[in-house]
Amino acid sequence: MNNDYSLNKARLEYKPQFPSLLKEIVSMNFSVGHVLPAQNEIKDLFPKTVNRPIVTLCKGERKQSAALRVGVVFSGGQAAGGHNVIAGLFDALYEMMPKSVLIGFLGGPSGIIEKKYIEISQEKLSLYRNQGGFDLIGSGRTKIETPEQLEISKKCMEELQLDGLVIVGGDDSNTNAAILAEYFLQNNCSTVVIGVPKTIDGDLQNEFIEISFGFDTACKTYAEMIGNIARDALSAKKYYHFIKLMGRSASHIALECALKTHPNAVLISEEVASEKKTLSSITAELADLIEKRAHAGKKYGVILIPEGVIEFIPEIKILITELNALLAQDSPHLEQIDTFSSLSEKISFVTELLKPEAANCFVSLPESIQKQLLLDRDPHGNVQVSKIETEKMFVETVTTELERRSDQGTFKGSFHPITHFFGYEGRAGYPSNFDANYCYSLGRMAALLIRDRFTGYMSCITKIHLAPQEWVPQGIPLTTMLNMETRQGKEKPVIKKALVSLKGKAFMTLQAGRKEWMIEDHYLFPGPMQFNGDIRLTDTIPESLQCEF
Amino acid sequence: MNNDYSLNKARLEYKPQFPSLLKEIVSMNFSVGHVLPAQNEIKDLFPKTVNRPIVTLCKGERKQSAALRVGVVFSGGQAAGGHNVIAGLFDALYEMMPKSVLIGFLGGPSGIIEKKYIEISQEKLSLYRNQGGFDLIGSGRTKIETPEQLEISKKCMEELQLDGLVIVGGDDSNTNAAILAEYFLQNNCSTVVIGVPKTIDGDLQNEFIEISFGFDTACKTYAEMIGNIARDALSAKKYYHFIKLMGRSASHIALECALKTHPNAVLISEEVASEKKTLSSITAELADLIEKRAHAGKKYGVILIPEGVIEFIPEIKILITELNALLAQDSPHLEQIDTFSSLSEKISFVTELLKPEAANCFVSLPESIQKQLLLDRDPHGNVQVSKIETEKMFVETVTTELERRSDQGTFKGSFHPITHFFGYEGRAGYPSNFDANYCYSLGRMAALLIRDRFTGYMSCITKIHLAPQEWVPQGIPLTTMLNMETRQGKEKPVIKKALVSLKGKAFMTLQAGRKEWMIEDHYLFPGPMQFNGDIRLTDTIPESLQCEF
Repeated sequence: MNNDYSLNKARLEYKPQFPSLLKEIVSMNFSVGHVLPAQNEIKDLFPKTVNRPIVTLCKGERKQSAALRVGVVFSGGQAAGGHNVIAGLFDALYEMMPKSVLIGFLGGPSGIIEKKYIEISQEKLSLYRNQGGFDLIGSGRTKIETPEQLEISKKCMEELQLDGLVIVGGDDSNTNAAILAEYFLQNNCSTVVIGVPKTIDGDLQNEFIEISFGFDTACKTYAEMIGNIARDALSAKKYYHFIKLMGRSASHIALECALKTHPNAVLISEEVASEKKTLSSITAELADLIEKRAHAGKKYGVILIPEGVIEFIPEIKILITELNALLAQDSPHLEQIDTFSSLSEKISFVTELLKPEAANCFVSLPESIQKQLLLDRDPHGNVQVSKIETEKMFVETVTTELERRSDQGTFKGSFHPITHFFGYEGRAGYPSNFDANYCYSLGRMAALLIRDRFTGYMSCITKIHLAPQEWVPQGIPLTTMLNMETRQGKEKPVIKKALVSLKGKAFMTLQAGRKEWMIEDHYLFPGPMQFNGDIRLTDTIPESLQCEF
Repeated sequence: MNNDYSLNKARLEYKPQFPSLLKEIVSMNFSVGHVLPAQNEIKDLFPKTVNRPIVTLCKGERKQSAALRVGVVFSGGQAAGGHNVIAGLFDALYEMMPKSVLIGFLGGPSGIIEKKYIEISQEKLSLYRNQGGFDLIGSGRTKIETPEQLEISKKCMEELQLDGLVIVGGDDSNTNAAILAEYFLQNNCSTVVIGVPKTIDGDLQNEFIEISFGFDTACKTYAEMIGNIARDALSAKKYYHFIKLMGRSASHIALECALKTHPNAVLISEEVASEKKTLSSITAELADLIEKRAHAGKKYGVILIPEGVIEFIPEIKILITELNALLAQDSPHLEQIDTFSSLSEKISFVTELLKPEAANCFVSLPESIQKQLLLDRDPHGNVQVSKIETEKMFVETVTTELERRSDQGTFKGSFHPITHFFGYEGRAGYPSNFDANYCYSLGRMAALLIRDRFTGYMSCITKIHLAPQEWVPQGIPLTTMLNMETRQGKEKPVIKKALVSLKGKAFMTLQAGRKEWMIEDHYLFPGPMQFNGDIRLTDTIPESLQCEF
């Protein structure tokens, strides 16, 4: 019964749903909306691509399109649905004119610079439709930034005679797309540059972008595991599960997973920052929770921790900043620290150099975290925040606090913690039906934006709370999303990372429920993502978006 | 679209499939097969329950059944499908005679001793059908062993006037069921005891038991994650994922997951033992793999590690045995070790006490593993093997080996390892259709075995490679599965844990494929378990069983 069929094959056969507006691709037109004012610095940096209007797809006259030559590139980490962006783009180009050509740059933006690419054929693509990962063409983190890189990219476009380049990426990559679009216009390169919003982290979100693709699948995958673990906790009744979730700085993933599973506690980094919660106050809160549950006869629980939280705890933020300066690439201390053989000597040495507040914070941390802060550094000498085992840090601080309370006689009970980290398993799995449909639509829309030469635009799909047929495709000028921000000491144009809004409906929904979830158990068990059957199970959108409607 | 429906509800509505033979429950009979000889020691220990025949369900005369009073208890760790054993049992009892009563003992076998139980009603049960976890009645690890416990259990049966007791558990719990059945018969207690084979580990398997329940769901859950990670590795092309899998001593789970996902390497503990592989030889093999893949331009990979492997590496096995003796509960060394404040002093102290071979092995281990071996001990002073972070141990030893090769100039490349441990997330999720059907059938069969008073029998379902309607329910006397084994210095009757057979078809299938999987990438992406749609996706049985047919 096995082996002859698989989900892989079943998903290849899936036909993504997409807006009716994107169906008759040859008779589509754009209605031109209003122009949003850009910041002055942005106007100066992007003279050719500012003051462009938002455009919305609408039914129009049948247009004869020439064959188009288009390139596509993935930038940054995996997000489920990437292959469907390519599929949507490919199908739309083919429907406009079968002689169109789609080129995939290999291994990310470095593929443009090094001219490594493949031509994407129907046959090749047929193995990747509705599949996870980015493996058809790969991805990478190279940025096209320097004048030389920009020039080489332009030459690459010209040599390949590309009418358009689609950059699939997060906030930085879309900023990069805006820069490329401007550069090409200024330098008489006719290639249109289009951005597509990708990131599981959910932080590429604003008044124009309802959600980045991959977020839905990642959260559904993590929520499956969290729900399973909650059910295990509820059955075994003896373990506390501390679950760290990927998601970079913002807590969108932790929030969405909390709405999907109702854990006993979830840290929201933005709330930690806003309420200036210290490590010891968070520790005390978690210990209180465990103590209260012990009173109710419960020795188990589920606690969610966003990976970025450590940067939002004020004293740790200060510590990390000081450590980064102290142990920067060119710092003499970096060499000195290597002269000490034992970890405790290294720790004492660094503690001496820190200012009192940071020093206090540093010595209060568990040894394993001190070690990670000192030794796991990136090539620039910066602490690698994402590698810090925050889940273990909280287990250690909470254990110490509970031991203290136990000695004082206030806490009676046992505490058996287990840690988990969910990240990589949510980035490259089969896209949910939503992500499959959404990405395919984004790809089709990108083709139309290229046809009508809207360079420096992002392909957007709006009204995603409706059925896919009713979704509304828009083109948004990337420059309208740009702000100036200080990055590594320099003022740079960037798309602002969206943090969780503490006034947003998603957070409010959490607030309304979380008190009850603490002691009573209201766990939900979302289970494995389903692709077939009742549409209310298979075609859902994220809870945090659903809250908004 | 969200919130109003969920997988939870959808699964409640699922109707498990089961053998046609189990449908007309009132007109079933048993055909009596041959008697299998028991070992002499077993005959002496189980005089009343040896020499019983295997019985197979068949169509018979319509039988009038009296109302039955039955108890059910979960013993040990969670396995998906437990609630369906209860559902099958409940429905069958009700169909025989609506006045039958089903009692669930709470929190495992201690519920029998402490007389903590609930009566299971249709209404209560209706929230747990086809759901994961054991939370309707909980589970526990207490064993009913001492004369006092046996006597109390007998009294409990008599007070509750139970016609039958169904013990849902692994090898130890089913041994316990055999002991209880014998004790009850010897002491004129009329309660029939029936065992049901449960464990995700797959090690409760023999010529009579095709598979224990929960194994299928656990492996499908882990394989989803492994496949997602493999796709991520293939896309990002920069990480080596070392994935440890739950499963206790045996490597059934690792083997099954390997057949489902085709990783670049998988350790099989039984093979490690059989080929007397040392830690350094395994390390060298993994380093070779990474070196060869680097030559092929591949800096990524996926490696599966069964959690029990550390006990099968000969020199570590010796080390653990010596450490267990050295640091036993009543050992003077245990106190002495606490007098040293630093880890390195503790390590030196213990190293001095070990015999040369064990000492050599101990000093060769990474510090973090030395620490776990010394400090993470159970109440008896034994090393807690399952808590040792074997995946990190291999990362450390492989890193060191690659650095050595790099210094020698033989390895050129980068090695970025990431570790994972999958365990708890696979024990309590929604049972696969297979586990849902299988467990429901096991429960129905248990009711019939009680009706016809086959005490000391295990409820078994055979021919599971066929459609559920054609499965064949059997009753197997537990005594035929018992062997004498030395446990903690004493000869005890036990059901032998099934290790992976290196001559079995499942392992042969792995052998046939694994060479190709090493350098070429043949990853499979099973994706999330599906409950609806094509039966070839939703109703599969484990690959390692499929191989047998």
